[in-house]
Amino acid sequence: MRFGTVPSGQRSETIHRANLSAILRALHEGGPRSRSELVAATGLTRSAIRALVRELAEAGLVSEDHAVRLGTPGRPSPLVRPEPAGAVVLAFEVLVDSIAAAIVGLGGKTLDRIRVDRPLEHLQVDDVVSELVRLVKALRVPDTGPMVGVGVAVAGVVRRSDGLVFMAPNLGWVDVPFGANLERALGLGLPLTVLNDADAGMLAEHRRGAAVGVDDALYISGEVGVGGGAIVGGQPLLGSAGLAGEIGHMTVNPDGVDCRCGARGCWETEVGRDVILRRAGAPQHAGLAGVEEVVAAAKAGSPEAWQALADVARWLGIGLGALVNILNPRLIVLGGVHARMYPVIREVVDAEVARRSLAAPRAEVRIVPAMLGVDAPLIGASEAAFDSLLADPTVWMTTGVNAYRLRSA
Amino acid sequence: MRFGTVPSGQRSETIHRANLSAILRALHEGGPRSRSELVAATGLTRSAIRALVRELAEAGLVSEDHAVRLGTPGRPSPLVRPEPAGAVVLAFEVLVDSIAAAIVGLGGKTLDRIRVDRPLEHLQVDDVVSELVRLVKALRVPDTGPMVGVGVAVAGVVRRSDGLVFMAPNLGWVDVPFGANLERALGLGLPLTVLNDADAGMLAEHRRGAAVGVDDALYISGEVGVGGGAIVGGQPLLGSAGLAGEIGHMTVNPDGVDCRCGARGCWETEVGRDVILRRAGAPQHAGLAGVEEVVAAAKAGSPEAWQALADVARWLGIGLGALVNILNPRLIVLGGVHARMYPVIREVVDAEVARRSLAAPRAEVRIVPAMLGVDAPLIGASEAAFDSLLADPTVWMTTGVNAYRLRSA
Repeated sequence: MRFGTVPSGQRSETIHRANLSAILRALHEGGPRSRSELVAATGLTRSAIRALVRELAEAGLVSEDHAVRLGTPGRPSPLVRPEPAGAVVLAFEVLVDSIAAAIVGLGGKTLDRIRVDRPLEHLQVDDVVSELVRLVKALRVPDTGPMVGVGVAVAGVVRRSDGLVFMAPNLGWVDVPFGANLERALGLGLPLTVLNDADAGMLAEHRRGAAVGVDDALYISGEVGVGGGAIVGGQPLLGSAGLAGEIGHMTVNPDGVDCRCGARGCWETEVGRDVILRRAGAPQHAGLAGVEEVVAAAKAGSPEAWQALADVARWLGIGLGALVNILNPRLIVLGGVHARMYPVIREVVDAEVARRSLAAPRAEVRIVPAMLGVDAPLIGASEAAFDSLLADPTVWMTTGVNAYRLRSA
Repeated sequence: MRFGTVPSGQRSETIHRANLSAILRALHEGGPRSRSELVAATGLTRSAIRALVRELAEAGLVSEDHAVRLGTPGRPSPLVRPEPAGAVVLAFEVLVDSIAAAIVGLGGKTLDRIRVDRPLEHLQVDDVVSELVRLVKALRVPDTGPMVGVGVAVAGVVRRSDGLVFMAPNLGWVDVPFGANLERALGLGLPLTVLNDADAGMLAEHRRGAAVGVDDALYISGEVGVGGGAIVGGQPLLGSAGLAGEIGHMTVNPDGVDCRCGARGCWETEVGRDVILRRAGAPQHAGLAGVEEVVAAAKAGSPEAWQALADVARWLGIGLGALVNILNPRLIVLGGVHARMYPVIREVVDAEVARRSLAAPRAEVRIVPAMLGVDAPLIGASEAAFDSLLADPTVWMTTGVNAYRLRSA
């Protein structure tokens, strides 16, 4: 067991790395800031900030505009920007009916992206890996600094340590070494993080969407399956093996219908995408577009469409109420189909949450639709891929893989 | 927003405080260690450890035995012990049918304790506060160093910041400023932390019981009500206002019976203490002793008693399964009545958990009865009270309230 001390022999280099990390993280997450703002944000001296920013600029990770006046008296403070081309990551998304790949630059700028919508159910993992490699070759890779990581959001139960997918019932995968296979196929030798799509959605909304600055938040991925990602005390809720957040499989209706997972009456059997389509009498293959039609019909005054959504909304509120009691979040961000239906059926959801949660935590929580839409998991995957650079920029200031190497991947 | 840097002007004093904190925490939580072990545990040099331990010893917080040989070659390494009388805290517990007070010394040694068992339902908060002050006067306070904090475990929904009890349905409290009232009545001017009894139970089992060294754990307080406390990533799960863990009020049976909280089919309506008594045909006032009789009867072969426990065990497994999916804990510690019944009815609980949780997180979790029994909430309250000393020992190395001041409280 080690405690939180800084061993004396390493103090100054450790502090130097921590300071570079703090500045780069502030710029990556918060966007351009003046040197004065960096002084305020980090507690470091002006001269320390100047020296550290110069180091980051020499490595091509940031740039400075000179002579920016911020409406305050005194000398103008140079504005420091993260350089999107200074370091990039590769991000992938593997959902039930779409896959996507993107190159994302420092500061969160998407430099290129390809999304392919199509049914992926029960596709072999090798085919998915080949398809992802094909997407990478099709990406337009700009002339950039080092590629520093790979992130993949998958609609499944994922072990963080090695990217093993224990179960992705809606893809038909069981115990698939997806991370290892993809790493081998890409051959980049970079840190690769595979994460659950809802965890990725939460990370994206926390860094760049509806939950920026919120330390206790919950994201619900309303797809065919229903997953959850949570931020607790400012940190991702992972659990002992990175599997936390499988909220779609909490029992809400013990005598309900069978779930793909083998249990009965799981939350996703009452609120998943296909349930909405079934209750509204729409065909299963209609997918997200079908749900959008049901929502539009309800808005236009169709009592049948409204009733179908209201029935689902009641179950949505029952589960959300339980989660409010268990996690005491400040914010619940609804993704996928729930983001679409919530504005139309808000009263029903909110009334059921009020009935099913204690007054004190209920008074603390707001429920909002996701801000980032279908891109949330891909953005979250890119954020996960940036983590090793942000934790220790010095490693990447001397080494790294040039993005051009991707051409030969 | 501040980032995790150490401002240059404060570096050395900040590091000094952090190092004192790390050593004192290691000794308080882990017990006596040799100087060599402290070197290994903290990464500090031998000479730094020697100087820091000397400072703590001069403040009376630790003591050293000389010439202890640990079976390894070389010079014997002095053994450093936390001094129970070097700093003490006052701990209270307010449950539905007992209240208690204790003086606990550094290292977790209980120096004196008084527990009063009696029905507290619907007792006014002022009466409880007066009773707690009476208990303090009755405690034998040894000749000690400073008293550094007060901790209180309450069977209710508590706001951490000021000890407001939003709701304690089984005590009949709603929006009661319990922390402020108790602080005024004690008049000690010390940091006072009020926490939910299940959160306290989790803290106690994590520091000194079944969950030592486990970074992702869940504690279930099986009393009249059912609460939860969780450790996630090594830290307490608090939520946005310290209200997280109200697992007793997750809906498990939407068409079930009414709960004291105003909702219907909450988990505690199926697994709380009174439900066990009712299913077994025992009187409600039989309390924990009554449950113990049911468990004994089931063990002795009574099919009625066994069936009553099995019916509750099934609902226990349904809720635990949901929590395994949501939190992915490594360990679930059952407290209160669930600790008593689990050994008899383990197969039924485990089978239902297996049915209601995904294979991957289920493979990660162990379910065990609590180790600390009825003392868990009181021990947890004392641990919470030690936190300010452990976070920054320097404040208390010069100031503090002598325990004798309690006499005039």
